[in-house]
Amino acid sequence: MPSLQVDLGQRSYPIHIGAGLLSAPALWQPLRARALRLVTDEHVARHHLDVVRAQLDLDASSIRVLPPGETQKSWEQAGKLLDWLLQTRLARDGCLIALGGGVIGDLVGFCAAIYQRGVDFVQVPTTLLSQVDSSVGGKTGINHPLGKNMIGAFHQPILVLADTDTLKTLPRRELIAGLAEVIKYGMLGDTGFLDWIEAHLNELLALDPAATAEAIRRSCAMKAAIVGRDERESLTGGSERALLNLGHTFAHAIETHAGYGDWLHGEAVGAGLCMAADLSARLGWIGAADARRCIALIERSGLPTRPPADMTPQDFMRNMALDKKVAAGRLRLVLLRALGRAVVTADFDPARLAETLEHFCSAAHHSCPTSHG
Amino acid sequence: MPSLQVDLGQRSYPIHIGAGLLSAPALWQPLRARALRLVTDEHVARHHLDVVRAQLDLDASSIRVLPPGETQKSWEQAGKLLDWLLQTRLARDGCLIALGGGVIGDLVGFCAAIYQRGVDFVQVPTTLLSQVDSSVGGKTGINHPLGKNMIGAFHQPILVLADTDTLKTLPRRELIAGLAEVIKYGMLGDTGFLDWIEAHLNELLALDPAATAEAIRRSCAMKAAIVGRDERESLTGGSERALLNLGHTFAHAIETHAGYGDWLHGEAVGAGLCMAADLSARLGWIGAADARRCIALIERSGLPTRPPADMTPQDFMRNMALDKKVAAGRLRLVLLRALGRAVVTADFDPARLAETLEHFCSAAHHSCPTSHG
Repeated sequence: MPSLQVDLGQRSYPIHIGAGLLSAPALWQPLRARALRLVTDEHVARHHLDVVRAQLDLDASSIRVLPPGETQKSWEQAGKLLDWLLQTRLARDGCLIALGGGVIGDLVGFCAAIYQRGVDFVQVPTTLLSQVDSSVGGKTGINHPLGKNMIGAFHQPILVLADTDTLKTLPRRELIAGLAEVIKYGMLGDTGFLDWIEAHLNELLALDPAATAEAIRRSCAMKAAIVGRDERESLTGGSERALLNLGHTFAHAIETHAGYGDWLHGEAVGAGLCMAADLSARLGWIGAADARRCIALIERSGLPTRPPADMTPQDFMRNMALDKKVAAGRLRLVLLRALGRAVVTADFDPARLAETLEHFCSAAHHSCPTSHG
Repeated sequence: MPSLQVDLGQRSYPIHIGAGLLSAPALWQPLRARALRLVTDEHVARHHLDVVRAQLDLDASSIRVLPPGETQKSWEQAGKLLDWLLQTRLARDGCLIALGGGVIGDLVGFCAAIYQRGVDFVQVPTTLLSQVDSSVGGKTGINHPLGKNMIGAFHQPILVLADTDTLKTLPRRELIAGLAEVIKYGMLGDTGFLDWIEAHLNELLALDPAATAEAIRRSCAMKAAIVGRDERESLTGGSERALLNLGHTFAHAIETHAGYGDWLHGEAVGAGLCMAADLSARLGWIGAADARRCIALIERSGLPTRPPADMTPQDFMRNMALDKKVAAGRLRLVLLRALGRAVVTADFDPARLAETLEHFCSAAHHSCPTSHG
């Protein structure tokens, strides 16, 4: 079983990755003596709740099963979960378990962050997206009608269990969405990993266990290394953690436009990565062939390479103005200085950004977005 | 002007204490270039908003004036403030200013902690209680019908400005309530400071500027030293930060019973300190004369030395069961191992606790609660 330690001093924690972890008694052992509350959603509960419940001997009052979907990441739902924790008298030494994808992880993590000023929580991610990305790094949060993840906290889990068997029950569309974040890691920091993904894409799409575990392990390791150097995404200095947002400023604008839920996060990231690569090429920082290579991989994965057809450059500019990376009124983007080397920068020619937006929002666009090269 | 540095590594910040600080341009200078949002309440606004507003050149859309009172520390009000921050498009490099007492400080600090996963905030405490206590240490939070401060976060301000002139417009009852926390610092960690308070109580009650600034400085310095050693109130190990809760487990039970707002927090702390001293004496850890000395000082200050007349020992036991210091199901209390030396412990004879509760809840009690000595 591949394991990984996220190194954050007192807040360090292990990530275990592999097939069949949910039914491995040894992994759950440290939790059995504790007061626990588990939160999951209806889809995940159908497939995985019984096995976890049996491992932890949980009674019904210690479990909440929410409707599925991004709309659960709301101020109202967080308030209801906190009511439940107080009504069931969970003390400060209790522990929450988030069994599900990114929505459950973000929501439960946020509640753990603010319940009694912070209690322990365990992430049991059941989607590829959450296994490679949102379960590492401690970002928790909820959405607001005016923006995604606008309310939240940094709060590290004490343990992450990523059981690759859970991906077998995942809708194919969500599996593909998760690949967007895997490809992101290759683009932003490791061309060797990008080569590996290109070579193993068919195995990843077929859920080959070894390839899947390896993709998760390498993605988590890259994220853990970056988070270890910049836990709270500093606004000044290197802002290293912000590198993880390659493609995400465009993606968040797409999600705000489309309404939460219509586009999966990973799908928006797919299109956002294409736009970031295109802009980097227009700035002359990477070659047009590099950009085409990234976009081709994203397309081969089955991800969208374009924003929604009804989005305009103005929609992007308006939605991006509220991005958390805006500092001193200037839009900062994560772009590729070279393939495998992302940078956070406000120092780019806005005319090139306008070209990228125009190009990707053009109704009569060519099939290859970087055909300008 | 006495100043103090709270030493928390990257999260260190200065506290400035003195008369007339609100109208001292130099102190506000570093904030003038930033995007600011100020929150205060109607009482404080009447006396102090104009001067702060002029210093910072704030327009009306950057200011929120809330009704006064503890009921504002609610999930609903926090949600409304976050709506406002998003609607007015405060970016992550913006800064909140809390102008008011503990309610405003806790509420605004909580919003700053979770807005975009944490933005800067400045505390401008305008009550003695908040100047000596709640503006130091980064505890932020809101109340829940099932308990005070049950939802919150640790989030340090970037600056604290404690203007002692603001105490002139404070109702006398609130000034006295603030003295409870000052006395607490003497009892828990410094008998020299306890001597000083006894000697200067009349000056403190008369708001003598030098004595007031000295009491604030010494209280903040003690709290800063303790917080510096245990920023997040660890559940294991020394739990040093929990020492600051001397008298508070009893006090929170009183506040839960009385309903927020009927008893001021400091008034409940006054009674709670008497109960903690009484129990410590019953356990034989301090002398009966020590307990009587503390209770006499609290009485001389004009603070209550008893819980509400309608409270029973059962009320205390029920309300204390949800205390954040409960670990592994055992109630832990902050008690005095010696006068000037508090400890956090679950290792006490529950029969003595029952005696203390019985004694303080007795309708026919003696005028001196430790008359058993």
